[in-house]
Amino acid sequence: MHINGQAWRTIWFDEADQCVGIIDQTRLPHHFETRRLNSLDDACTAISAMQVRGAPLIGVTAAYGVYLALREGHADLAAICERLLATRPTAVNLRWALERVSRALQQTPESERADAALALAGVLADEDAAACSAIGEYGLELIRAAWDAKRAVTPEADCLDILTHCNAGWLATVDWGTALAPIYKAHRAGIPVHVWVDETRPRNQGAFLTAWELQQEGIDHTIIVDNAGGHLMQHGQVDLCLVGSDRTTITGDVCNKIGTYLKALAAHDNGVPFYVALPVSTIDFTLEDGLREIPIEQRHPHEVSHMQGLNEQGQLTRIQVMAHHSAVNNYGFDVTPARLVTALITEKGVFAARRDSLAALAERPA
Amino acid sequence: MHINGQAWRTIWFDEADQCVGIIDQTRLPHHFETRRLNSLDDACTAISAMQVRGAPLIGVTAAYGVYLALREGHADLAAICERLLATRPTAVNLRWALERVSRALQQTPESERADAALALAGVLADEDAAACSAIGEYGLELIRAAWDAKRAVTPEADCLDILTHCNAGWLATVDWGTALAPIYKAHRAGIPVHVWVDETRPRNQGAFLTAWELQQEGIDHTIIVDNAGGHLMQHGQVDLCLVGSDRTTITGDVCNKIGTYLKALAAHDNGVPFYVALPVSTIDFTLEDGLREIPIEQRHPHEVSHMQGLNEQGQLTRIQVMAHHSAVNNYGFDVTPARLVTALITEKGVFAARRDSLAALAERPA
Repeated sequence: MHINGQAWRTIWFDEADQCVGIIDQTRLPHHFETRRLNSLDDACTAISAMQVRGAPLIGVTAAYGVYLALREGHADLAAICERLLATRPTAVNLRWALERVSRALQQTPESERADAALALAGVLADEDAAACSAIGEYGLELIRAAWDAKRAVTPEADCLDILTHCNAGWLATVDWGTALAPIYKAHRAGIPVHVWVDETRPRNQGAFLTAWELQQEGIDHTIIVDNAGGHLMQHGQVDLCLVGSDRTTITGDVCNKIGTYLKALAAHDNGVPFYVALPVSTIDFTLEDGLREIPIEQRHPHEVSHMQGLNEQGQLTRIQVMAHHSAVNNYGFDVTPARLVTALITEKGVFAARRDSLAALAERPA
Repeated sequence: MHINGQAWRTIWFDEADQCVGIIDQTRLPHHFETRRLNSLDDACTAISAMQVRGAPLIGVTAAYGVYLALREGHADLAAICERLLATRPTAVNLRWALERVSRALQQTPESERADAALALAGVLADEDAAACSAIGEYGLELIRAAWDAKRAVTPEADCLDILTHCNAGWLATVDWGTALAPIYKAHRAGIPVHVWVDETRPRNQGAFLTAWELQQEGIDHTIIVDNAGGHLMQHGQVDLCLVGSDRTTITGDVCNKIGTYLKALAAHDNGVPFYVALPVSTIDFTLEDGLREIPIEQRHPHEVSHMQGLNEQGQLTRIQVMAHHSAVNNYGFDVTPARLVTALITEKGVFAARRDSLAALAERPA
């Protein structure tokens, strides 16, 4: 996607400098900076310090990390993978990507492994971009139908209003994103979209990343606090909701950033369609009941009690935004029950959030 | 209520210094500072700069403002009231308090008006504290019943979990508060309560004021982001919700801080009682349909885009917490439909959020 009018991915191999390039997402939206990864250490730091984040992007970064490690002369594949895995132990895609790379390299002569790892990382990156692009195409048709329906009822409507939560944009993937991919495709197809961007406390990925992405693509958007979506839906100011998913059950329950459930309730209460965009890889076919079976990670209280931004001198500054001595609780995700989900948008098509619909996916080849 | 173990009100007349004292709420929770009001100017600044906030407290401050103005030699009562009204033009209680003071003073000889105004301001303050205390007593019985019911089912339960949104505590009134009054009474009655405190973006009144109040009273509490309440309710971690109201319809719709509706939806979806505490003065007997009839104030975008807190040197600092150039929308309130409200707790008793129940209140003498 675009930054200052130029096409970028979140990760790439720089042929000239023979290094891996990334966008440092900890500096956004205030500063746009790239970093070079030259070693296993660099790759581990990029993941653990969240310079790269988002399940698909972490997986691809780890694959490049294996290449950098082999190039440095590390030979023990298991040890390399173990170090990379330890950077974000709960990231499902990280494990998946490393297992795939390991399996392939074990069948490769040692002298060719570094080159093979580099090629494979590139394949993973291209696959992710293609999957997200396909999600975008399927989602585009839903947006187009919603826009046609809105214009039929309200000919004077000047845009389709879409609400999103957190960042399921291209910064969380290699390119296109998941929930934002249909929005980018719609914009390019000439459909006038306006996006309500939930701030998404505590890490503010909406205000920091989603808003920045949309700005760079020239898409009309408005930042709101997480408390505001219900009011907007009550007053007909949201035509559809579109969010991502970190983990999805075979029954269609969706585990996504904390607060997603509250928006889904408001959508349901006001007859607003609630779509979830996700790669098939996030569907866990072993899970039946998201609420009971998906463990919810508790994150550091500092994410709630402190906030980063620009001070009056334009410097990135961290401040404490609550009283000392109060306890803080910081669950990272919640589960939206399938009954509140209108449909799941995947790279293989649009599916009802129901077992009979999703079961067919399990039987398709990966 | 208590600050550092000593009893305080939010506003008082200092006999020794012959001035009006207030707590400067713009400095909380980081600094506890009081200010002296010696003039009409001081009173106007206190209200407009939000050193005092909360409908009941603003009304009482305005009454003291009339006293200070008369003492300074201002004689034109209408002009005094006009200046005070302009400080927060949309505050219903401000107008109500000034009309009451004006009416009383018009029947008072000019030479006695300053003394009469001082006495009347004191009466208003005492009345507000008494109303809030009564809300607390009625709410206490609901909390006691909930605690008894919880223990009957779960004998090992060690506390009753109550979720609140925004600050409807004693800082918003003269003493006791509205939504927090029952919690203070329950704590003093020996019922073990634990309060989930919604941060309450964008102005963070939960994290700044409610948490500080509860801390000072020694009440167990935990700050959460506004996104988290749904997840907690899904997992049985909230026994009841208790919030305030800025404006209530005769049909029981409740207009309160933005985000209240989302919590009410989650409470309803999970069978958690949702109580609203309010003085009868917030009921507008002319309103039938909160969603259609209550205009919702849009506030300054800076409340969303900037945040205040302590930097690493311990200084109060303001930072910008989102990308430049993004639009921001900042609705201040939302309306929770009566169907989601379990009951209204007032100083005259507990009422169903229905016209037949509330109509009786309209007929009682004020």
